Amino acid sequence: MIQLDEWKNYQGLGKKPANFDTFWETQLKKMEETGLDYELVPFDLASSVADAYHLYFTGVGGAKVHCQLLLPKNKKGKHKGLIQFHGYHTNSGDWQDKIGWVAEGFVVLAMDARGQGGLSEDNSQTAGTVTKGLIIRGVEEGPENLYYVRVFLDTAKATKILMSLEEVDEENIYAQGASQGGGLTIACAALVPEIKKVIATYPFLSDYRKAYQMGAQTSAFEEIPYWFQFRDPLHEQEEEFFNTLEYIDIQHLAPRIQADVYWLMGLQDTIVPPETQLATYNKILSQKSLYTLPEYGHEYLPKISDQLRHVFLD
Amino acid sequence: MIQLDEWKNYQGLGKKPANFDTFWETQLKKMEETGLDYELVPFDLASSVADAYHLYFTGVGGAKVHCQLLLPKNKKGKHKGLIQFHGYHTNSGDWQDKIGWVAEGFVVLAMDARGQGGLSEDNSQTAGTVTKGLIIRGVEEGPENLYYVRVFLDTAKATKILMSLEEVDEENIYAQGASQGGGLTIACAALVPEIKKVIATYPFLSDYRKAYQMGAQTSAFEEIPYWFQFRDPLHEQEEEFFNTLEYIDIQHLAPRIQADVYWLMGLQDTIVPPETQLATYNKILSQKSLYTLPEYGHEYLPKISDQLRHVFLD
Repeated sequence: MIQLDEWKNYQGLGKKPANFDTFWETQLKKMEETGLDYELVPFDLASSVADAYHLYFTGVGGAKVHCQLLLPKNKKGKHKGLIQFHGYHTNSGDWQDKIGWVAEGFVVLAMDARGQGGLSEDNSQTAGTVTKGLIIRGVEEGPENLYYVRVFLDTAKATKILMSLEEVDEENIYAQGASQGGGLTIACAALVPEIKKVIATYPFLSDYRKAYQMGAQTSAFEEIPYWFQFRDPLHEQEEEFFNTLEYIDIQHLAPRIQADVYWLMGLQDTIVPPETQLATYNKILSQKSLYTLPEYGHEYLPKISDQLRHVFLD
Repeated sequence: MIQLDEWKNYQGLGKKPANFDTFWETQLKKMEETGLDYELVPFDLASSVADAYHLYFTGVGGAKVHCQLLLPKNKKGKHKGLIQFHGYHTNSGDWQDKIGWVAEGFVVLAMDARGQGGLSEDNSQTAGTVTKGLIIRGVEEGPENLYYVRVFLDTAKATKILMSLEEVDEENIYAQGASQGGGLTIACAALVPEIKKVIATYPFLSDYRKAYQMGAQTSAFEEIPYWFQFRDPLHEQEEEFFNTLEYIDIQHLAPRIQADVYWLMGLQDTIVPPETQLATYNKILSQKSLYTLPEYGHEYLPKISDQLRHVFLD
C-alpha cells in the first residue's frame, strides 16, 4: 500500500510543455466561438420531484454532445447547479440517480463523453489506431487532434450552458465525478475557474509517464503499452508520444483550479494508481482535502459520500 | 445463455416439506410476540429533504437489528412506505442513496441483515461450522436454528414497524432489493402479504439443490460445496442437509405473495444463476413481470430502474 507521507511532495513525471497555457487559451477561444446554443427534448421520467430533458449541444469540431438535464419541479428563484461526469467507456447513467440532488434544490447536468457508452457523438477523424482506447486517440497527429482535448472542452461548454440557464445561480456551480469522471471534473474546474466546489473520486487522466512506468497492462492506462505494442514496438517515438499526452495530463491543468477540491482515493487502487493521482492533487493551489480509504480500491467507496454531502449543501 | 422459453414451466428441484406452511406460521407467531417496539436515534444527514434516524428493534432470539429510517421533512398526511434489503455480506449502504425516494414522498426503511456488514447483531449460537457462509449457518440443527429463518422474520418485523409509523399509509407498502436483497424482498412479500408491489433484482436464496447441481464453486452458493468439503466429504448427510435448507428456500414461500412482482434478471448471471431464480419466479401466483437483460450478469443493470420507477409512483 502506498505510504502517503512519502508522496506528499511528489510532482509527477509529467513535463509541462512551454506553450501549455497558451494552447488551452486558444482551445477555449475556439470553443467559445461555437456559442452556447442547445436543444432540449423532454424525457418522460416518472418523478414528482424532477423534470427531465435530453440536452444537446454542438461541441468543437461539430459533434453533437448529449447531457441529461434535471430541474426541480418546485422552482424557487435561482438554484445551485451541479455538473456530473461519468467513468470511462460508460455513460451518464440512470436518470433517477440524480433525483436526490434535484430534491435538494440542484439543477443537475450529466454529460455523456463523446463516443463512449452514451448518446454523444464522436465525429473526430484521426490518423493512427482507433481500435482501443481514447487517451491515444489522435496522439500521432499532435495535441490539437487529441480526443480528450475535445472532451475537456465539452466539459467546459456544458458547464457554461448550465450557468446560462435562467433557473441556475451561476455563482453556485459544483462538479463531481469518479475515475474518468473525476479526471473530467478536475479538467472542468481548471477550464471554468468559476466552479465553486468539486468532489473528485480517484481521478483518471493524470501522470501518464508514471502510469506507464508502474506497469499499465492491467490498469486503466492499458492503452499506453498497447499503443507501443502495436504501433511502436521499438519505442522510437516514445518521447514524442508522451510529449503529446502532456496536453491532456490533468496535472498541468491543476494549478488553474480555484474551486475547493475534495479528493477521494482508495489506497488499494490498481486501476488508477494513487501515485498518478497525487501528481495532480499535489499541484492544486486552491483549498483542498484528501480523503483516503485504506482498504478500498477502484470501486464504490462507502460512507464518505454521506460525510461529504454537506460540502454541496452548505 | 439460458433459453428462457425452455424454463418457463420449471418448478425447481426443491422438495417442499409437508409442514412448511405450519413451520412458518409458528415462526411468525413467535416473531409477533416480540411486539413492535423500536428505538430511534437521530442521524445528522446533510439534507434539506430527508430526516434520518437509526432505527433499532429486537428480533427473534433477542438480537438487536438496525435499520436506516428516512422520512420526508415536508410531511403531508400519510406517506407511501418503501422497505429495502441489501446484498450478501454488505449493509444498507449510504443514507443518501435513499434521498431520491424520500423526495418522491416515501418513508424509506433499509434493514441491515444480522451479522453482515451493517450494525445488526447476530447473537445466534449454532452447532457446526461458522466459518464461511450464512445459508449453512445452523443447518446441522434442523430448520429452527437456521440463520435465514431469523433474517426472514426480521424482514417481516421491519415491515410491520414501517406500517405502524404514523407517517406511513399501511396500505401502500413497497419493497425492493438485489441479490440477497432480492431474495429477502421475496421472502418479506410472502410473510407480509399486505405488501403492494415489489421490485426484486436477481434474487438469491432459491433452489439450493439446483445451484449445487450446476456447480457452485464460483457462484454465490459456494458455501454449499464448501460445507460438503469440510463437514461431510462423503455426502452421508446430503439429503438431510438439503431437506433442512428447504425451509429457507424462497421458492416455497413464493405462492404466499399477493404483491405485484417486478423481477429483474441478467441472463449472463453466474453468481445467482437464472435457473435458480426461475424456480421461484414460476411459483409466484400474483401478478408478475420478468425483465431480462441478455448481456448483463450479476451487476448493476442499467436503464431498467428508470423504466420501472413508475411502478412505485403510480
